[in-house]
Amino acid sequence: MLRISFLLIVSLSCAAISTAQSDNDSLLLRSIYDEALTNGEAYSNLRILTKDIGHRLSGSQSAANAMEWGQSVMNAYGADRTWIMPVVVPSWTRGDIAHSTAYIGQKELPLHVTALGGSIGTPNNQTIRGKVIMVKNVDALDTLPKSDIEGRIVLFNRPMDPVLINTGAAYGGAVDQRGNGASAAAKAGAVGALVRSMTHALDTLPHTGALRYNDAVDRIPAAAISTVDATLLSRELQSHPDLEVSLQMNCEAFDDVEQGNVIGEWTGTVLPKEVITIGGHLDSWDIGEGAHDDGAGVVHTLETLRILKAIGYQPRRTLRFVLFINEENGNRGGKEYARQAGIEHEQSELVHVAAMESDAGGFVPRGFRIDASDSATAIVRSWEDLFAPYNVHLFRRGGAGVDISPLKTLTPRPTMLGLSPDGQRYFDFHHSSQDVFENVHKRELELGAATFAAALVMLDQHLPSIS
Amino acid sequence: MLRISFLLIVSLSCAAISTAQSDNDSLLLRSIYDEALTNGEAYSNLRILTKDIGHRLSGSQSAANAMEWGQSVMNAYGADRTWIMPVVVPSWTRGDIAHSTAYIGQKELPLHVTALGGSIGTPNNQTIRGKVIMVKNVDALDTLPKSDIEGRIVLFNRPMDPVLINTGAAYGGAVDQRGNGASAAAKAGAVGALVRSMTHALDTLPHTGALRYNDAVDRIPAAAISTVDATLLSRELQSHPDLEVSLQMNCEAFDDVEQGNVIGEWTGTVLPKEVITIGGHLDSWDIGEGAHDDGAGVVHTLETLRILKAIGYQPRRTLRFVLFINEENGNRGGKEYARQAGIEHEQSELVHVAAMESDAGGFVPRGFRIDASDSATAIVRSWEDLFAPYNVHLFRRGGAGVDISPLKTLTPRPTMLGLSPDGQRYFDFHHSSQDVFENVHKRELELGAATFAAALVMLDQHLPSIS
Repeated sequence: MLRISFLLIVSLSCAAISTAQSDNDSLLLRSIYDEALTNGEAYSNLRILTKDIGHRLSGSQSAANAMEWGQSVMNAYGADRTWIMPVVVPSWTRGDIAHSTAYIGQKELPLHVTALGGSIGTPNNQTIRGKVIMVKNVDALDTLPKSDIEGRIVLFNRPMDPVLINTGAAYGGAVDQRGNGASAAAKAGAVGALVRSMTHALDTLPHTGALRYNDAVDRIPAAAISTVDATLLSRELQSHPDLEVSLQMNCEAFDDVEQGNVIGEWTGTVLPKEVITIGGHLDSWDIGEGAHDDGAGVVHTLETLRILKAIGYQPRRTLRFVLFINEENGNRGGKEYARQAGIEHEQSELVHVAAMESDAGGFVPRGFRIDASDSATAIVRSWEDLFAPYNVHLFRRGGAGVDISPLKTLTPRPTMLGLSPDGQRYFDFHHSSQDVFENVHKRELELGAATFAAALVMLDQHLPSIS
Repeated sequence: MLRISFLLIVSLSCAAISTAQSDNDSLLLRSIYDEALTNGEAYSNLRILTKDIGHRLSGSQSAANAMEWGQSVMNAYGADRTWIMPVVVPSWTRGDIAHSTAYIGQKELPLHVTALGGSIGTPNNQTIRGKVIMVKNVDALDTLPKSDIEGRIVLFNRPMDPVLINTGAAYGGAVDQRGNGASAAAKAGAVGALVRSMTHALDTLPHTGALRYNDAVDRIPAAAISTVDATLLSRELQSHPDLEVSLQMNCEAFDDVEQGNVIGEWTGTVLPKEVITIGGHLDSWDIGEGAHDDGAGVVHTLETLRILKAIGYQPRRTLRFVLFINEENGNRGGKEYARQAGIEHEQSELVHVAAMESDAGGFVPRGFRIDASDSATAIVRSWEDLFAPYNVHLFRRGGAGVDISPLKTLTPRPTMLGLSPDGQRYFDFHHSSQDVFENVHKRELELGAATFAAALVMLDQHLPSIS
């Protein structure tokens, strides 16, 4: 009996502590959301980043301006110290020419195209013209006779699968043609490539994005083509298999330049040698304004610092707020950050216990992608009830984000989370001229910032200490 | 041992049946979502309703046109029979004048206003002008001396609470000033009322909506004022307490007219005497296009019929697809539908086992509002895992919807569900000139239709029979 009573008392005490802790967490989350929704600066910061600074491709002057601005905001929000971690990034310009015309019987139809990021221009910036061979995927090129491809322009026309509820999965299932299409086409003898834009929407917007040239093959120019135009070409090819397409672009690559990750640090009060990094990427494509991709992640990160200061939070661990450079066309910022984290570990015994990223847009937050050990995943999932009042429900395993992914190589491996906003509208704007401030919703952006801040606090409070 | 084995066998068999049933449901849901996302007609139907027919206030010609169109679509989609259930509805016109000016010191500032639905015009359609008394709620009028209100124009300026995550709750917490403000102000001697628009957005859009006059008090004209203007007046009143506002409107009320609920019926194959009704409301306010409110609900309803026919579904119960009239300013359609359901029950032994409504916009579906007995609520909640792959997570108790709410008076009381789309953007558009087709997202609308159809099928399959 005594033993049972003792166990009962211990068990009740644990329950009481656990309930009290849960009540504290609950109040903490409520104060974070209240602050974001009443005094939020995420939206006004996004306006500055998108409208005053504008798009900010790695290597550009505006990317440098954004770095300076980001650091100044971190200082204003009270980071203990801020610095730029130098990163050598590529420098590429789209140029001002992106013309493409379809010649169908007697008709000449202008097509909506834009260069894929990193593409070469057309030879001597002059127009190339050729018949079109349409394929649905890169492998299909292997099944065609060389004569069907040689001297032609390949149209990669696999749509994103509309029945996948997760639009990111639909993107993942189609994007290989953008990354690898140009070199696969070149290998088969093509002179150019057009790639269907990565979006569910049927419209006339071309969506850019990085291609990767295979160094073993000559480079050919490659452009994104709008879904309306790709659909039109596909249909016209049935009755006019000899239709031709022209392409002219004057993209240009330059020598790499030094830019950097912008870092703000807030020293932990209990476990200062344990680091939690949160961030988004400061660079964007050079069309639109990089508002969702990843202006939202940038202001989520800055707003997290502001909110936690405003509510008087005292971090247990050292918190790092990072605006990564060069996510879009190289991820050199993310790689360098992880490399330096490894060096810090060796030299200063700093350990990265967790990292979190926001790079999926400024839409209403739905949950998190969890990339962590089973035990850490269980800890994160134990927060489901705490986040439920904020309609934050998805606690799924998956890729937490590109910028923080190189941190996986560290030992011990940090717990990684990615903020998951609703994805249904994301690819309407992604990498296009429509990724602008006007297409971000103030409240949704604020809810995302609050959710990001809340998860950071929970990681700080509840991950077991490594030391 | 025998007994235990027997129980074990029964239990395993039940588990097997349950798993097989769940697999069937899972496949059924997948086929519904696939159909909606690949062959969906919700978006093209919404275009017709909003662009070809336009807004459709009860009593208007366009509401009559919408009824005719709705019935023709139900016929085309293969309803067994369709009919119009006559409903006598109010007839009111906004007029073409809604002028309001603030006189602040030497400045004259035009204000963005529109009549509240049902308001009288200003006397003889002429301009009234008076000092402004600002209050945050209706009760505050009781605390003020009569001299502060008499002859004045009352500005009701309580904002929707931004920290409430559920925007519908924020709306519910502010909307009494719109419904009851005019008569409360009149009772205290005011000559007019301006009511802050029901939206979180800070913009220049006035949002209309119904007011209810108290018959014991003289009627005074009342208008919605944009949040920007309400905020400006509030600030200016601090330094210019004597500022004046003018108002001129030429709204007009006419005799009631007969319109009706549009009903399509699909006879059940197993339990034809048990009815499940789903619907949205066909009427809308007379500004904007009623795209989210409730064009989305209308096309969700029509699309549900189309999807279930397309996938070859055989309903167990009799399904009723209903486009209600007059939700916005009277709910006479919903009331008449419930009254007729009671008569049918007496005369033909038809029993309404369930009803479901979509009247919260065409945004990405998040879940359901459940208004049902504990046992029926448990059945609905048992579907959580089935809906999880579609990111449909919210299974909360609450009001299922205005149109179906009068069905609560039936015995037995039907199980009622309301589709819950994400609500963060809803009040940007609600009852304003911006509730237009362009502000509805194709995929989100399709996902809503699929979720609506899926829930109908689950109700049909899994609610216990009443007979």
